[in-house]
Amino acid sequence: MRLVDLIRRKRDGHELTVPEIEFVVQGYTAGHFPDYQIAAWLMAVLLRGMTRAEIAALTGSMLRSGEVLDWSSLPGKKVDKHSTGGVGDKTSLIIAPIAAAAGVYVPMISGRGLGHTGGTLDKLESIPGFQVDLPSRRVGEILESCGACLIGQSASIVPADKKMYALRDVTGTVESPALICASIMSKKLAEGIDALVLDVKTGSGAFMKNEADATFLTELMVETGERMGKKVVALITDMDQPLGRYIGNALEVMECVEVLQGGGPADLMDLSLDLAAWMILLGERAATLEQAKELAAQLIANGAAFQKFCEIVRLQDGNENALHDFSLLPHAEHRLDIMSTEEGYVAGMDCEKAGIASLVLGGGRERKEDSVDHAVGIVLHKKTGDPVAKGEALCTLHYNSDARLEEARTLILGSYRISPELPAGNRPLIFKVMGDKTVGGKTTTKVAGQSQQV
Amino acid sequence: MRLVDLIRRKRDGHELTVPEIEFVVQGYTAGHFPDYQIAAWLMAVLLRGMTRAEIAALTGSMLRSGEVLDWSSLPGKKVDKHSTGGVGDKTSLIIAPIAAAAGVYVPMISGRGLGHTGGTLDKLESIPGFQVDLPSRRVGEILESCGACLIGQSASIVPADKKMYALRDVTGTVESPALICASIMSKKLAEGIDALVLDVKTGSGAFMKNEADATFLTELMVETGERMGKKVVALITDMDQPLGRYIGNALEVMECVEVLQGGGPADLMDLSLDLAAWMILLGERAATLEQAKELAAQLIANGAAFQKFCEIVRLQDGNENALHDFSLLPHAEHRLDIMSTEEGYVAGMDCEKAGIASLVLGGGRERKEDSVDHAVGIVLHKKTGDPVAKGEALCTLHYNSDARLEEARTLILGSYRISPELPAGNRPLIFKVMGDKTVGGKTTTKVAGQSQQV
Repeated sequence: MRLVDLIRRKRDGHELTVPEIEFVVQGYTAGHFPDYQIAAWLMAVLLRGMTRAEIAALTGSMLRSGEVLDWSSLPGKKVDKHSTGGVGDKTSLIIAPIAAAAGVYVPMISGRGLGHTGGTLDKLESIPGFQVDLPSRRVGEILESCGACLIGQSASIVPADKKMYALRDVTGTVESPALICASIMSKKLAEGIDALVLDVKTGSGAFMKNEADATFLTELMVETGERMGKKVVALITDMDQPLGRYIGNALEVMECVEVLQGGGPADLMDLSLDLAAWMILLGERAATLEQAKELAAQLIANGAAFQKFCEIVRLQDGNENALHDFSLLPHAEHRLDIMSTEEGYVAGMDCEKAGIASLVLGGGRERKEDSVDHAVGIVLHKKTGDPVAKGEALCTLHYNSDARLEEARTLILGSYRISPELPAGNRPLIFKVMGDKTVGGKTTTKVAGQSQQV
Repeated sequence: MRLVDLIRRKRDGHELTVPEIEFVVQGYTAGHFPDYQIAAWLMAVLLRGMTRAEIAALTGSMLRSGEVLDWSSLPGKKVDKHSTGGVGDKTSLIIAPIAAAAGVYVPMISGRGLGHTGGTLDKLESIPGFQVDLPSRRVGEILESCGACLIGQSASIVPADKKMYALRDVTGTVESPALICASIMSKKLAEGIDALVLDVKTGSGAFMKNEADATFLTELMVETGERMGKKVVALITDMDQPLGRYIGNALEVMECVEVLQGGGPADLMDLSLDLAAWMILLGERAATLEQAKELAAQLIANGAAFQKFCEIVRLQDGNENALHDFSLLPHAEHRLDIMSTEEGYVAGMDCEKAGIASLVLGGGRERKEDSVDHAVGIVLHKKTGDPVAKGEALCTLHYNSDARLEEARTLILGSYRISPELPAGNRPLIFKVMGDKTVGGKTTTKVAGQSQQV
């Protein structure tokens, strides 16, 4: 087998076999192939596509390129949730405790923020002392004792993806549904889970701006998971405006605590209960989705979910007191209210701009190597559908430096669309659920044929 | 400007601008860009194609990446011929002397044989002492004094193509009409010529096996030349069987001398007269193609063309006597007649197999770094349409080593298709002429629209 022949075959639109894909992935991970050959192969994959069978083979090869965690000694289902990323998207901190409180094991591996999207690890690290890098042995102990552990990805997990993603980033080969699917699914399946809930975001603050693109990728991920023998349910959810009212790391932790204590904004509470319910159902701690939702709500109402979050924070060396006394969390020195220059209703938001506004204040990263200011961010007073008077505050910026304050102000102000009339119709919070057929739901929509290359 | 953005734009099917293409080519030649980014870009170009304007921009950028020869001090038109390569394709050695004898300047830069195709430089080097690597200054002197100089490509000519071709070779990006066109045309235009005659081969011994592919590439090359301000005429000619009767370096020199002395096989003579006539016409040494053909025939008949060949050989340090006394050329030690096992007619040949048979005897190269045995080769006694008796010799192998003799024997025997009946219909020697509108011919066929990416 010669790599150049496999590049040519993919270039000409042929379907590669499992051993051929294994040859590419393992050879590249082992350093046998130069970057330029893999770059050409990746571009051919992006432009010619892959069949479902090829995507599953690629996912499997990538998965096997490194350590695959094994929690089979734990007596119960292991379930994780993965979000494709958004602004104010903080549900992990809420649903991991709920699911764990329901008896589901949640070995959750998360990422850091990049660009306009936030990252779970950054949010957790705004809790003083919280450790996201733990040895597998310690992760196992925490999982066993409290049911959930929220960590970062170790270098030993899916090294093929690290190498390939770095190359994709500089060769214009990121935007391939096949490659995106294999990258996400290989990392999630390497966590040693039985089932996965996907939260696929769509809208102006998501990577997939429209529902059709989101549906397409979702269906690929669900089918790939199924081909790998895992249960996967996916929710396509709204990211046309930030989720909840707080954007920024410590700010979002506070909002999560509010929700875990039964308060907080309705959209964040509703989505969290739905996602947690699916985790509980896939974790076989409820017989139906209805019962799972009731259980989730009950675990918030009786304080068990918040107690579980405190336990996780304590076990991961975080200062648990900060969850009871927010003055122990980082706070920005300055605040600036952003006033509406018009009267009317919020007709919609450019959610990506809102995320970039928080990034510009220091709450996010432009490049991977940037550091993050956990204290800064944005508190939204107005969201889509809200009435607003001229001179009334739309939001408040929390900032430490005014170096890029004007830029952030312009961005967040520009993210609001004010209209004289109340906008007609509401975007749903959850557009659709896919992959639920294995747990009693309707049949998964097939967006493209089995043999089509995507 | 960032290279990754240009990769993305080409990936998404956009047309790149002249400065964008210049940025890619000059940056790569200067070593500013890593191979992996250019590999991804080349694959995007292959799969998305380029417009005519992009191909011209790429050709221009590649051309300017190195030295561009300048013969403007010579008082007359400079015209070259380029062949896409074939088996027994030896016309350069015949037509350069004819055109020069007619008063056209011929600064001809040729290549070496690779795979089943022979190379002009190898043929010339079978003449004892012949030098193909000469400094530009000496090339100018020879051109000025005798009108033609036949040399190899120096490292200073189109370095972008050298670097890019090496990368294309290992990344499955050779087979792009746009890249093939830019590679050929940039090298030819760097010779400092006013006009170019293209001999595009089609058939079983050519790179383009069918006429449609050949026509497509030809039209691109003609238009690219015109966009670069050069006159380009292209002949699409037959390579479904070897040209002439001799395959092999020294053998082909002998056949060329025969033609220059008015003898030799009809197909080789006819094609040489046509190609030479086009060079004479483009070189403005005749008013019509008819007159140019008459002049070419006359220059053979009166010995001027052969005298010119002798002069070229002498000026390039070759042993001129070898052209008068073939015993001074290399000869193989052994000969083996290949007998027909059937009776009937030669219905056709697998011309590529015939070329590989000569390669296997040592007359060609499998890899660029291989050396060549100038003496070996094949003399064909039978070609398509010829009657053949059982046990009659189809051809004779000239060889020095019997290491791969059996392989060569199998190949050449397998290249002949013998049929009981005379095959109906003849393939033409010249399928069509393109680009001749600028010199009074019909309008060039446009195979694809201007804005289409190819």
